[in-house]
Amino acid sequence: MYKCNEARLKESIVAFSRFGATEKGGVTRLSLSPEDLEARNFFIKCCKELGMEIRLDDMANIYATLPGKSSLPPIVMGSHLDTVVKGGKFDGVLGVLTALEAVRTIRENDIELDVPLTIVNFTNEEGARFEPSMMSSGVLSGKFDKAKMLKSIDKEYVSFEEALKNSGYEGSEENRLTEASAYIELHIEQGPVLEAENIQIGVVEGVLGMVCYEIRLFGESNHAGTTPMKLRRDPLFLANNCITMLLEELGKVDEELVYTIGRMNVTPNIHTVIPDKVVFTIEARHKDSEIIAKVEEIIHALPQLEGGCKIEKEKLWDRDTVVFDQEICNQIEKASNGYGYSSKRLYSGAGHDAQFIASYIPSAMIFVPSINGKSHCEEEETTFEDCVKGADVLLETVLNLQTKVAMKEALI
Amino acid sequence: MYKCNEARLKESIVAFSRFGATEKGGVTRLSLSPEDLEARNFFIKCCKELGMEIRLDDMANIYATLPGKSSLPPIVMGSHLDTVVKGGKFDGVLGVLTALEAVRTIRENDIELDVPLTIVNFTNEEGARFEPSMMSSGVLSGKFDKAKMLKSIDKEYVSFEEALKNSGYEGSEENRLTEASAYIELHIEQGPVLEAENIQIGVVEGVLGMVCYEIRLFGESNHAGTTPMKLRRDPLFLANNCITMLLEELGKVDEELVYTIGRMNVTPNIHTVIPDKVVFTIEARHKDSEIIAKVEEIIHALPQLEGGCKIEKEKLWDRDTVVFDQEICNQIEKASNGYGYSSKRLYSGAGHDAQFIASYIPSAMIFVPSINGKSHCEEEETTFEDCVKGADVLLETVLNLQTKVAMKEALI
Repeated sequence: MYKCNEARLKESIVAFSRFGATEKGGVTRLSLSPEDLEARNFFIKCCKELGMEIRLDDMANIYATLPGKSSLPPIVMGSHLDTVVKGGKFDGVLGVLTALEAVRTIRENDIELDVPLTIVNFTNEEGARFEPSMMSSGVLSGKFDKAKMLKSIDKEYVSFEEALKNSGYEGSEENRLTEASAYIELHIEQGPVLEAENIQIGVVEGVLGMVCYEIRLFGESNHAGTTPMKLRRDPLFLANNCITMLLEELGKVDEELVYTIGRMNVTPNIHTVIPDKVVFTIEARHKDSEIIAKVEEIIHALPQLEGGCKIEKEKLWDRDTVVFDQEICNQIEKASNGYGYSSKRLYSGAGHDAQFIASYIPSAMIFVPSINGKSHCEEEETTFEDCVKGADVLLETVLNLQTKVAMKEALI
Repeated sequence: MYKCNEARLKESIVAFSRFGATEKGGVTRLSLSPEDLEARNFFIKCCKELGMEIRLDDMANIYATLPGKSSLPPIVMGSHLDTVVKGGKFDGVLGVLTALEAVRTIRENDIELDVPLTIVNFTNEEGARFEPSMMSSGVLSGKFDKAKMLKSIDKEYVSFEEALKNSGYEGSEENRLTEASAYIELHIEQGPVLEAENIQIGVVEGVLGMVCYEIRLFGESNHAGTTPMKLRRDPLFLANNCITMLLEELGKVDEELVYTIGRMNVTPNIHTVIPDKVVFTIEARHKDSEIIAKVEEIIHALPQLEGGCKIEKEKLWDRDTVVFDQEICNQIEKASNGYGYSSKRLYSGAGHDAQFIASYIPSAMIFVPSINGKSHCEEEETTFEDCVKGADVLLETVLNLQTKVAMKEALI
């Protein structure tokens, strides 16, 4: 089994972290920003040095391909180079750089490939500059309408269409990723599970289904000093009761269910005024759609009217669980075992390009541990030792898959 | 007993509501704004027509005095002409216009006064343009430092000092209200109690003491999809528990205690992110300082550390209960009974200039009912019938008081 080079991978991660480096050790590299374009240029330079061919599609996705002996549909690795504002040095870019490290190891060992190997960089995965997130994989998989995406604007009122035109990275639609033998995305876990259980490799079997509701409570605003308690219609006190009910019921559903009240706004939000409106979100994620249905039942069991206040519940969105390709998962697990790395099968709670690509290409993901489970912040961290273990598993999985693909083709 | 003129008072209220009228029937008349200056000019015109003498002090407070047979310290009535943004037609101005109506009734009935009678308009009671509220009565009573007040700036960075200079209403310090036989302020209740109990006159015995705390909870922000429930340190879930504890305990303290959570902010306030910080205020009001002390005990009984989250409690401010002059309260009640108006002794939950003036002049207040308890909004409403009943009681109280003052002086 081939081993990747930790020092080289580290150098590569450090080099890319300079494009958009923040003062506190993080990275701000919004999609198609000058920093992103610098990172893209450097990525292409690295790929060309390895003899890879570069193609760009109409969403500015970059494909760098190392040819194989056959012209069978490639095996694709990759992720994204963009980050959120004050994000970390690993989210996204690690999937691209471990793929690059895998190709470097293939080249230095003169490994002959039966099937072409492609590294992809997806444009605007984070959605931090242009909403929505996973924009390009969404367009490739037909989930999002390209014409609508082009009109998405950033905070300076620049449209995605303009940013695309000005980037120099707009390629042609015929170069889109349409057919591939497999897609494998390595990513940091963004959660604390692997670290907490001291496990090195996450074999990601899918992406959790989720549902997000907005709960709106309407009461009556009045002077805090002059309104006796029994004459109040206070939506904040009622929101507190509703949250208590939700937490109590949700706590009973399933150990693996995660649920969050992340946003809450009080109106008029003045200490001397009884609020007249409270709005909060409740979102929940689980791989089992019946569990998600149970969550929705609990939300709908909240009263519509109580204590003179009106309660509205609106589903903002939901997403079905995405199940990845079991054969690829088995290969990842096997590769991990081969190196003697501990591994665990798990679902991703966060969304990734792989969840859209999985709709038309056999896909799976590899997770490496996130220290303290942190991501989307400057404290985001993964040890280089864990990074290179991920690269090893990615490399071995890809090599095994391409042999299998070629053999299967030969049998036909 | 003399009766005031409802039609004339109504005309007066309607006339003043035009200075700063909003589209939806409210008033925006910030202190020393062009609208406030118009109202002041018109007020002075009305007073001069009644033969009153006008004085201005260094805080732009206006004093209009109807001379009496003696030069004893005057009996003072009044309130304020300024409003909050999108306030109502009654808050403040009604105390000035019922006083004006009382003087008009005195003049048309050729009532001879033993003691001078003064109507005061206090500058910047609302604090809506220049913080703090009750600025001028605060300076007169020595609660606020004038030099500091002069530096208070509005949203356009105009200082109170500049506004004062440009108003044409800056008078001299020697004209300040320093000595008076009594101060009586009529005001809308700004609460629902009188209306709910179908009572016409509130005999205000004082202003409730209050305390306001800010509760800050710190946890750990993480991805809502990737962090198992047992590995979370969620300050919002903990805030919910804290609020439940507070409401349960505060609910047991005393029937008359009022408590409000008016402001609550969640950080970062994103539906897909576990919050790392929640801040909310809790304020409580009651006339009994022991009850307020009990409230503070309950707040301090919240844990300092729980579920991996830190909890801080900071007292933002407090105010002792102000007790008004019992003799004046008795006179208000007697006058009310004389007219056959139902009355109720109560405390004000809101702050008023009278609470500062009471520190050096015997003071009390008269409340008239607020429809639906609304104030500081365009829906603020009191029937003209209730307004004129308030004016009757104010007039009768003032007449009785001035007789008493003169008699007491004659006995010395």
